Amino acid sequence: MASIRPSPEQLKQLRELGAATVYEAQGAKGALDHGMKPIDPGVRLAGPAFTVDCRPADNLMLHYAVSKAQPGDVLVVDAKAFMEAGPWGDVLTLQAMHLGIAGLVINGCVRDANLIIELGFPVFCRGLSIKGTGKNQPGRVDVPVTIGDAVIRPGDIVLGDRDGVVVVPHNELESVIASSLAREEKESGQRQAIEQGVLTVELLGLTEALRRLGLQ
Amino acid sequence: MASIRPSPEQLKQLRELGAATVYEAQGAKGALDHGMKPIDPGVRLAGPAFTVDCRPADNLMLHYAVSKAQPGDVLVVDAKAFMEAGPWGDVLTLQAMHLGIAGLVINGCVRDANLIIELGFPVFCRGLSIKGTGKNQPGRVDVPVTIGDAVIRPGDIVLGDRDGVVVVPHNELESVIASSLAREEKESGQRQAIEQGVLTVELLGLTEALRRLGLQ
Amino acid sequence: MASIRPSPEQLKQLRELGAATVYEAQGAKGALDHGMKPIDPGVRLAGPAFTVDCRPADNLMLHYAVSKAQPGDVLVVDAKAFMEAGPWGDVLTLQAMHLGIAGLVINGCVRDANLIIELGFPVFCRGLSIKGTGKNQPGRVDVPVTIGDAVIRPGDIVLGDRDGVVVVPHNELESVIASSLAREEKESGQRQAIEQGVLTVELLGLTEALRRLGLQ
Amino acid sequence: MASIRPSPEQLKQLRELGAATVYEAQGAKGALDHGMKPIDPGVRLAGPAFTVDCRPADNLMLHYAVSKAQPGDVLVVDAKAFMEAGPWGDVLTLQAMHLGIAGLVINGCVRDANLIIELGFPVFCRGLSIKGTGKNQPGRVDVPVTIGDAVIRPGDIVLGDRDGVVVVPHNELESVIASSLAREEKESGQRQAIEQGVLTVELLGLTEALRRLGLQ
Amino acid sequence: MASIRPSPEQLKQLRELGAATVYEAQGAKGALDHGMKPIDPGVRLAGPAFTVDCRPADNLMLHYAVSKAQPGDVLVVDAKAFMEAGPWGDVLTLQAMHLGIAGLVINGCVRDANLIIELGFPVFCRGLSIKGTGKNQPGRVDVPVTIGDAVIRPGDIVLGDRDGVVVVPHNELESVIASSLAREEKESGQRQAIEQGVLTVELLGLTEALRRLGLQ
Amino acid sequence: MASIRPSPEQLKQLRELGAATVYEAQGAKGALDHGMKPIDPGVRLAGPAFTVDCRPADNLMLHYAVSKAQPGDVLVVDAKAFMEAGPWGDVLTLQAMHLGIAGLVINGCVRDANLIIELGFPVFCRGLSIKGTGKNQPGRVDVPVTIGDAVIRPGDIVLGDRDGVVVVPHNELESVIASSLAREEKESGQRQAIEQGVLTVELLGLTEALRRLGLQ
Repeated sequence: MASIRPSPEQLKQLRELGAATVYEAQGAKGALDHGMKPIDPGVRLAGPAFTVDCRPADNLMLHYAVSKAQPGDVLVVDAKAFMEAGPWGDVLTLQAMHLGIAGLVINGCVRDANLIIELGFPVFCRGLSIKGTGKNQPGRVDVPVTIGDAVIRPGDIVLGDRDGVVVVPHNELESVIASSLAREEKESGQRQAIEQGVLTVELLGLTEALRRLGLQ
Repeated sequence: MASIRPSPEQLKQLRELGAATVYEAQGAKGALDHGMKPIDPGVRLAGPAFTVDCRPADNLMLHYAVSKAQPGDVLVVDAKAFMEAGPWGDVLTLQAMHLGIAGLVINGCVRDANLIIELGFPVFCRGLSIKGTGKNQPGRVDVPVTIGDAVIRPGDIVLGDRDGVVVVPHNELESVIASSLAREEKESGQRQAIEQGVLTVELLGLTEALRRLGLQ
Repeated sequence: MASIRPSPEQLKQLRELGAATVYEAQGAKGALDHGMKPIDPGVRLAGPAFTVDCRPADNLMLHYAVSKAQPGDVLVVDAKAFMEAGPWGDVLTLQAMHLGIAGLVINGCVRDANLIIELGFPVFCRGLSIKGTGKNQPGRVDVPVTIGDAVIRPGDIVLGDRDGVVVVPHNELESVIASSLAREEKESGQRQAIEQGVLTVELLGLTEALRRLGLQ
Repeated sequence: MASIRPSPEQLKQLRELGAATVYEAQGAKGALDHGMKPIDPGVRLAGPAFTVDCRPADNLMLHYAVSKAQPGDVLVVDAKAFMEAGPWGDVLTLQAMHLGIAGLVINGCVRDANLIIELGFPVFCRGLSIKGTGKNQPGRVDVPVTIGDAVIRPGDIVLGDRDGVVVVPHNELESVIASSLAREEKESGQRQAIEQGVLTVELLGLTEALRRLGLQ
Repeated sequence: MASIRPSPEQLKQLRELGAATVYEAQGAKGALDHGMKPIDPGVRLAGPAFTVDCRPADNLMLHYAVSKAQPGDVLVVDAKAFMEAGPWGDVLTLQAMHLGIAGLVINGCVRDANLIIELGFPVFCRGLSIKGTGKNQPGRVDVPVTIGDAVIRPGDIVLGDRDGVVVVPHNELESVIASSLAREEKESGQRQAIEQGVLTVELLGLTEALRRLGLQ
Repeated sequence: MASIRPSPEQLKQLRELGAATVYEAQGAKGALDHGMKPIDPGVRLAGPAFTVDCRPADNLMLHYAVSKAQPGDVLVVDAKAFMEAGPWGDVLTLQAMHLGIAGLVINGCVRDANLIIELGFPVFCRGLSIKGTGKNQPGRVDVPVTIGDAVIRPGDIVLGDRDGVVVVPHNELESVIASSLAREEKESGQRQAIEQGVLTVELLGLTEALRRLGLQ
């Protein structure tokens, strides 16, 4: 699925803006559910999605996907939220890093977390499981997948940090970054106002809503 | 709801005593459930509760509450344990810190965790969620709220650390601190005894209970 | 239940090999479920199991078990996965450390986590709970217990790290270590191959499986 | 804790009004969480609460409570939401029915469900568990307990049906029944209006709220 | 969003085929998660989706949606899986039935279940909750919504029975029914074969797969 | 694994005794967790276990197992508690009934529940899922499996009813039935005593335990 890939500059901007800001800036959409978190809370990840739709407890499609992804891609894997298997571990991490893959977002668990953190490979997942997997099940790559209630399409830009993961449609990237920067600037103004003693109730224009409820 | 506020010394004592000790010292009551945890495990929080009863996925009442709380207050928010919204983030954190609010205990999620941790604002919650909220729903402040099976009344003293959160009725504060210190001293004696080789079975007088069960 | 105890050298080897490697090397068995995790993610624990089968929210049997375990033992406690009680805390930690107990694996929660981490006592559990317990219920020690779907027998070797916990039958320890080392060596070869550009699809012989699925 | 007990007529009215109506009529409060349900969905229960605060997996206090409750009482038991024990079964059911106890609301599981349903004893709980319990733990009766986020005080009126359970403070019973009947009448008018083609948007005066949101 | 609506004949066929058959016949896709179930297990529901994306614990958009849906529509509501509110009850049921709405699929809870079942209005949901809702929050109708990992678009055909809910893209309806009927016929042949003593291992051609695994 | 099979009379006795009675009679062991329930609550199942250890979301091993089980066997399948797949449905039900298999206990979900109930095939599981499965994964039959914390060995006797499932070691069957009948008789005496006004506190000898706690 051909699409213009984000520039290094854009990815850097995204990582600095952070997932929550980008989520709001693009109209409060695209966030994965709260259960998807980095195994190393300090990492920040941004890149285009290379998607994998596979079955739980089997990593045949993960090996396949790694061999098909491009450098800079983020593997986005729907492993069906099954918690009692770790289909991704040290070998796949080394393979992925060797091939220049930017990181992993997996709807499921991983293992070998000490090594993954030590190597600095960004992984977002539901937890850690030691349990092994088969290498037998079919699956699909480069197709839309759903995690939480977010649909991730191949080439969509994935952004993750401590708060979780948000997805930006690839054809909206430019405008979303622009909106995010505008939001940042607006929030910067709000921060100043707060420091000068303005209450958020005024700052965000909530007086009317509160009055309607008989408050304020 | 007027009540004599805890002194800085009392709050310092509470933070040093820790939530588990205070819980036991006041008769094994007042602990919130195990799902309420600090986003930065190293923080310690103590202060009188300013309570908020609101609906899930809406933070109008949080903005209102921040504007009504006193410096030193801990906001205690029942956001109904809904996990897919982060009604508290950077703007509210800055506002709260500017107003001298001591910290937040929220039955729900927050976002902008990197900034919150960096600023050192103590937050106890159920998790992190990027997802946004409305600013439309009514709610109440300064009323009793329930989190887990603990009822928190306005002015109750909230104490949180890595183990979780415990609540002390404000009119019991003095006696609870006294009991906690007594318990600390007793435990200090127990520690010495343990180091001298006394078994906890003897130390805690469990021999009789074990004998009744045919053990020992 | 008499059994030859593992040597310090064997335990050191296990800690270095890690739980995931040992799990695979012994035939993908013996892993506790994903919910059992260290409270300090950096810790590594290995030792023979001294098992405890007890009821939720009661720690009489824990005090009894500590008094019966041998130095070097890992207490493996089935507290029935109840989350709203912390039957293990500071006093039991001090007692256990004084007696040379190697660590704790508990199907339930603990408290006083700050102290436990500070003292460096390895604890694997489901979470942290402030809530206290009774000292009344019967139970059994030195019997098989089940956590997740893993059965742990007295004397089995318990190995835990960031990924979780795996159990090695004590009469298989020698061969499992040998298999683990062999696996390590094989993986070391795989790492070199990966660095030289071999794909895991080839390395692990997945081409045939992929072809059968119409891929590759 | 002495309180005027509800009359048979009042209890009959409550059972006919149903839990959801009474909940709304008393100001949208007092509902237990959604996990508390009748084991026989057709059953309806109303009566004053005789409360029990006990530990999980132990039913000593249940036997005690049954012997202390009055005919017509509803036992309201906080067994701490532990799912792997059934502290209530056939013997306690027979005992309770013999003593004229009206029913059971338990924050936990029960067993012998076939018999309970066959005998027509109303039980509201979280599920069914075969697993047995001890008879060792202390507890308290006739004290406020919390289930979900509802506080139930001794003598409060408990009302349960297929939708779940709601609690009415005993000193508000008369006014709550009055409000419920008024609400019923109002809803009866609404039903007629709906049948005559009026939309609920008009009926409930939602036009303004929708207009504010740019809808309608 | 204009689309050719399914004929009564097609809907009847779907209801008779059942959700599991249609799911398989359309290529093992479109099933909502296992938590979405009928409150009356005997009901069968089929119809085109009129979708609602709303916030948890607020039913303003439900009243709006009912007023906009067409007779025969199935309301498909994403109420964000929040369990502690019942945004749909008796009034909305009566309104919906009066307007000829075919049924409700809601990612959340409902209340007044006795009346809903008595009236025979088909409702698929996650559970029952007495708790009330606001009428304040914005939302959207006639947009794609996600429940479980299934995306439901306006006009897609929704099919529900005891097993759960499956969604058929409206432009695939004809072919899906054809495939389903073909599958039914094939299964009918399989049933006969089974009755004549053929094993499913042969019938489904699993001998080769088993041989590869060293079985059979 | 050869073992003397239970007689029809023994199985009948077990079904009449019920799971809870047998669980208690054999020393409060062998119960599966509370999540394992019959899809038709009225059903009663007893028979020797034919065990299957398989991966989630794959039913190759189920087809294999059905072809290897003996008439009267209960298939006991560990499908790893994965909820988003229904590896057992109409075809396997028909096959199993044709071969005289007595019923199914599966640590996972099933589908085609309407047909299964209509045919009267006893199924105990965690829920219903429409979602399909692969036919690719290896597994094992006739080996010990674990569900909840109960280990089920091939040939163990499985007993299920509305309360859930309990497992009797096959070499204990005779004595367990004897103990169960004795327990029944004892309970029958207790019932009479209760009807004559004896309190369970006396009947079960709880006076001493209550006195120790300062009650009674």
